[in-house]
Amino acid sequence: MADSMRAFVIKKVGETGLVEKPVPDPGPEEAVVRTTAALICTSDVHTVKGALPVPDGRTLGHESVGVIEKLGSAVTGFEVGQRVAVNAVTPCYRCHYCQRGYTSQCGGPLGGYKYTVQMDGNMAEYFLVPAAFANLTPIPDDITDAQAVYTCDMLSTGFMGAEHAYLKFGDTVAVFAQGPVGLCATMGANLMGAGRIIAVESRPERQALAKRFGADEIVDFSMGDPVEQIMDLTGGEGVDAAIEAFGFPQTFEACLRVTKAGGRVSNIGYHGENPAPLQLPLDAFGLGMNDKSIHTGLCPGGNERMTRLLRLMQTGRIDPTPMTTHTFAFDDVATAFAMMTTKDDGIIKPLITFG
Amino acid sequence: MADSMRAFVIKKVGETGLVEKPVPDPGPEEAVVRTTAALICTSDVHTVKGALPVPDGRTLGHESVGVIEKLGSAVTGFEVGQRVAVNAVTPCYRCHYCQRGYTSQCGGPLGGYKYTVQMDGNMAEYFLVPAAFANLTPIPDDITDAQAVYTCDMLSTGFMGAEHAYLKFGDTVAVFAQGPVGLCATMGANLMGAGRIIAVESRPERQALAKRFGADEIVDFSMGDPVEQIMDLTGGEGVDAAIEAFGFPQTFEACLRVTKAGGRVSNIGYHGENPAPLQLPLDAFGLGMNDKSIHTGLCPGGNERMTRLLRLMQTGRIDPTPMTTHTFAFDDVATAFAMMTTKDDGIIKPLITFG
Amino acid sequence: MADSMRAFVIKKVGETGLVEKPVPDPGPEEAVVRTTAALICTSDVHTVKGALPVPDGRTLGHESVGVIEKLGSAVTGFEVGQRVAVNAVTPCYRCHYCQRGYTSQCGGPLGGYKYTVQMDGNMAEYFLVPAAFANLTPIPDDITDAQAVYTCDMLSTGFMGAEHAYLKFGDTVAVFAQGPVGLCATMGANLMGAGRIIAVESRPERQALAKRFGADEIVDFSMGDPVEQIMDLTGGEGVDAAIEAFGFPQTFEACLRVTKAGGRVSNIGYHGENPAPLQLPLDAFGLGMNDKSIHTGLCPGGNERMTRLLRLMQTGRIDPTPMTTHTFAFDDVATAFAMMTTKDDGIIKPLITFG
Amino acid sequence: MADSMRAFVIKKVGETGLVEKPVPDPGPEEAVVRTTAALICTSDVHTVKGALPVPDGRTLGHESVGVIEKLGSAVTGFEVGQRVAVNAVTPCYRCHYCQRGYTSQCGGPLGGYKYTVQMDGNMAEYFLVPAAFANLTPIPDDITDAQAVYTCDMLSTGFMGAEHAYLKFGDTVAVFAQGPVGLCATMGANLMGAGRIIAVESRPERQALAKRFGADEIVDFSMGDPVEQIMDLTGGEGVDAAIEAFGFPQTFEACLRVTKAGGRVSNIGYHGENPAPLQLPLDAFGLGMNDKSIHTGLCPGGNERMTRLLRLMQTGRIDPTPMTTHTFAFDDVATAFAMMTTKDDGIIKPLITFG
Repeated sequence: MADSMRAFVIKKVGETGLVEKPVPDPGPEEAVVRTTAALICTSDVHTVKGALPVPDGRTLGHESVGVIEKLGSAVTGFEVGQRVAVNAVTPCYRCHYCQRGYTSQCGGPLGGYKYTVQMDGNMAEYFLVPAAFANLTPIPDDITDAQAVYTCDMLSTGFMGAEHAYLKFGDTVAVFAQGPVGLCATMGANLMGAGRIIAVESRPERQALAKRFGADEIVDFSMGDPVEQIMDLTGGEGVDAAIEAFGFPQTFEACLRVTKAGGRVSNIGYHGENPAPLQLPLDAFGLGMNDKSIHTGLCPGGNERMTRLLRLMQTGRIDPTPMTTHTFAFDDVATAFAMMTTKDDGIIKPLITFG
Repeated sequence: MADSMRAFVIKKVGETGLVEKPVPDPGPEEAVVRTTAALICTSDVHTVKGALPVPDGRTLGHESVGVIEKLGSAVTGFEVGQRVAVNAVTPCYRCHYCQRGYTSQCGGPLGGYKYTVQMDGNMAEYFLVPAAFANLTPIPDDITDAQAVYTCDMLSTGFMGAEHAYLKFGDTVAVFAQGPVGLCATMGANLMGAGRIIAVESRPERQALAKRFGADEIVDFSMGDPVEQIMDLTGGEGVDAAIEAFGFPQTFEACLRVTKAGGRVSNIGYHGENPAPLQLPLDAFGLGMNDKSIHTGLCPGGNERMTRLLRLMQTGRIDPTPMTTHTFAFDDVATAFAMMTTKDDGIIKPLITFG
Repeated sequence: MADSMRAFVIKKVGETGLVEKPVPDPGPEEAVVRTTAALICTSDVHTVKGALPVPDGRTLGHESVGVIEKLGSAVTGFEVGQRVAVNAVTPCYRCHYCQRGYTSQCGGPLGGYKYTVQMDGNMAEYFLVPAAFANLTPIPDDITDAQAVYTCDMLSTGFMGAEHAYLKFGDTVAVFAQGPVGLCATMGANLMGAGRIIAVESRPERQALAKRFGADEIVDFSMGDPVEQIMDLTGGEGVDAAIEAFGFPQTFEACLRVTKAGGRVSNIGYHGENPAPLQLPLDAFGLGMNDKSIHTGLCPGGNERMTRLLRLMQTGRIDPTPMTTHTFAFDDVATAFAMMTTKDDGIIKPLITFG
Repeated sequence: MADSMRAFVIKKVGETGLVEKPVPDPGPEEAVVRTTAALICTSDVHTVKGALPVPDGRTLGHESVGVIEKLGSAVTGFEVGQRVAVNAVTPCYRCHYCQRGYTSQCGGPLGGYKYTVQMDGNMAEYFLVPAAFANLTPIPDDITDAQAVYTCDMLSTGFMGAEHAYLKFGDTVAVFAQGPVGLCATMGANLMGAGRIIAVESRPERQALAKRFGADEIVDFSMGDPVEQIMDLTGGEGVDAAIEAFGFPQTFEACLRVTKAGGRVSNIGYHGENPAPLQLPLDAFGLGMNDKSIHTGLCPGGNERMTRLLRLMQTGRIDPTPMTTHTFAFDDVATAFAMMTTKDDGIIKPLITFG
């Protein structure tokens, strides 16, 4: 094991770079993983813009898989050299929030999201894993790193979006925006019994992926008000559930508008970009009486859930890799990061490979 | 059975009065009830102010009990002369909304609320009951009309507020405003296992009733920001659930603010008075990621639920009658209605008696 | 409309036949449907053997679709000539059981199952539909009768089996027996997010259909104890849920044995053939403490659910018609019924067509 | 801190005694507690009879409270000297079973129950606490040890019985047997909104406690078949849920018989005394189709739940101490244990006090 490693950090607000750092050492309940593959997340782009208060020099990244390099003294059931995936959210699993099942709120609001926010992230050659017994997920031999890395955030978040839609089989659902998380929400809704999925998206390549992942119809918001289009498609009644995967006040409001009475709005969009409060217009909200409900959450972690995501790949039910539009070596991570900022060249998710 | 009867109607926006109307005749699935007792609801005050589009001459009222006067040809299992309570919401129980369990949204948003909105209300000497087989609830002999009449709206709505708080036993809950529906929410939260109930209210007589119905602590918003007070009382953590029983944007926002991550906001307040959208500030909403959820609904009806409410009175677990601060004969209903508008004399609920 | 029609009846225990009967006339809330297609159900075979107390001359059948011939005076929203499917279970939707959501227990245990048990069944040229507003389901133009007829019982029952497995996405599930209801349970589990489906079946043609409908692995109980085989396949841990679709004490016990702690046993098998009580061995039941649960139910009806089943066909997510191994004209229904008794010629479901 | 301590052990099957043992030393995630009060559980009586395979010399006991004596290096948020309660079940909170919410099945069936089964129990002057961060519960100053000790098993198990009854407010419930766990189930059902509680019990002192804790009616099985009595009390319909708190095949069957269609059977009785399988007669089980469900579980632990139980005492909603019929010093624990075996002198729970 090397003493030092390269890490991709936020140097200061607006500036990133590769720097040299010491390889971390695990505490009794922790592990250290040598990274083999990673994805770049748009939320890191927000972080670099200053959306979250992060100390200068903090390592970015929270979507990485790799090989166990070192295990803390109290971590049992794993061995060095094992291939593992680690979720973006790494809860303690023992605080009151975790015991109640809100593991992403570990210790308090959004507290399960530790990488970059509370500690170095994992866009680095090695990274620490807290509460390793619960947060290391063995990757089966028949699953590649390029597949497994989607369980770290995209699939878990997107599928949570579908879970919070509380679908009965055959229900109708609208998914607003088909970025990587929205695409995974479409995939998840399809997997969990939706009967009709309307995907809202204007870019042709994302429309095509949405169709491939289970969308039945595409609403292109550049062609007219998506609320009107969805009401038309549903004979004026609206959908049973709407998933907000864009993170914009108008989109959130549109989700409320297109759901029928009794419908669910499931938010997975990150609303940190716009300081204005979200709005609940009284007509769409039925004066607070139309049995609609609104649900929120943050990428659930833990190796039990991760194992279920991997199983769905093993049995061929899902394959997220068509979202990997680009691949870069870790040396070129800055280029990849820049492309995620501009969204050039139809980029959806860039895969970063390590040595 | 008389041919004509007196009914308390909205003559035009802003004007009410007692008028003579024909006694209704039941269709095959309907019943006609002779009224014996009723309560006046603040939502009728809103209606008279013009909050809902209602034709001139429409009978007001949706909280009445009485005696079966006539049964439609297809209604079985009841008999003329039986004492019955009828919920404010009288769903068909057969449309898609009802089949999904959203009976208050019968046929569409808020569609189960038929009295006054879709047909004559029941502040009259006789009234029609749609889908009578499901909407007539026999009143047990040991329950008085003055007790039973609280099942028609107050208890069902207030208890729904507590149900939508999704309490685990011992949870903490804040109930904003202790009008009659808020008081019933307090009673319901206490009945369904809350471990600590914080009631927000400034009027002493309502504070006293809140304590009697199960509140452990009172927060008086006239003495300072209720959000700060509740955060102080909970050591800065907030409550597991908050119930909005006031119908005001600031109150709704306060509910969101006082709930901890993973918390539930349960709305029972009527928001028809203020045209502005409700707001979800991003800090209190955790950028859409803090596992909070928001729930809404409208007084659930049906004789199965009504029977359970009555059973709780029969076994002595609840007694709502301390909320009856005043009693009037039907002749004086206009006086009672005026008092409900001004909320004079510490009025909470006025009981109207018939014949 | 004809005055008389042919109906396939139980003449007495052990004997069936086609007889002439008057065409029924609908009451105010009923409808009469002219049959166009039907399936024969094995439960009718049990009925003819004497499993249920049924008066001589009662019409058999509960899986029929057709065209509305006549509507009761109180039935709105439909028109004569409309193609409709009708579930085997036709609840009133208004009694206390229905209001609580147990519509198959309408009025009391199994009370929603009215055809043949409480009234004439629908293996006849015309049939009555109780509570028609809730029980008539329009068939979309792009769905054939041969497809729609599977919603009447097979899909609704099988999917209930999957619903009662309370699957999280990626869960493992074993489905015991791949008769038509078991095959639909396999299809349902696949549709609702199962990650690995183990189907227990020995007949090659049913094994093939199970694979086609989503089973990942087949356990052939003729090759060894299915419990051992499933424990081997799952590394000794067992499955998250097991669905009993056979109706036999040993199968029920096997379901309990193959589920891990916290697992669900979902029963859809009909246990009327064997008078012995089902058994819960204490080791498999964890002395009553291993967080296992057992769930039961009966084909849920209602046009809201039926519409969702049809939607899944419309969007191409399910296609049950490969189960139709044989087709007969109504004239030859006796032959079809005899084959369902002996299960000759690899028969799974015989479709009966009407003039 | 002393080096050695006294512990109450099973010397061999059928024989108990006080022995000297070394005071345990905590691992990094563990704690050691000095015991101040304990209760004796009938399940230990079963253990001594040989119901569970336990090595000779193993310390008994799993219902103890005390004062933190020593904390492992990785345990934060607590301090030495703090008063704490520890549940009988002490899960790791990190394995797949725990992550799914089945914490009592930690690591496998019943695996959360570690005291006496997997390690020394806590009827000793000091005891170890695994996963201390999640399993140490601070006792508020206004709660005595004699109150708090009921959270360790009795209240948590009994309340789980009520939770698994899935009560809607106003539901009817029968609780079979009013031993300490059954009494707590009665208390829990009352707290969680039951509308009518029928307690089955023959001993007058337990009948009296049942009434005090919320039972509305008592069925004395020594006066006739309790199933018949309950059916009579409910007009032949049965109850919404039945809680089995006795651990006997006939009682389990009676629970199934007295529930109406759609009803829940919630087992909390320990069935280790009788080797015969439990039985589900087909009539009571509706041939596997009457929407009944059966639920099981084992005393849920964790300081989040424990805190909620303590809160209910703090706000005066529950008081279990009337069940403490006897008090003994730890020196006399053998006498107390003998009385729990014979159930002499109307004993319900004996409190053991330490130094």
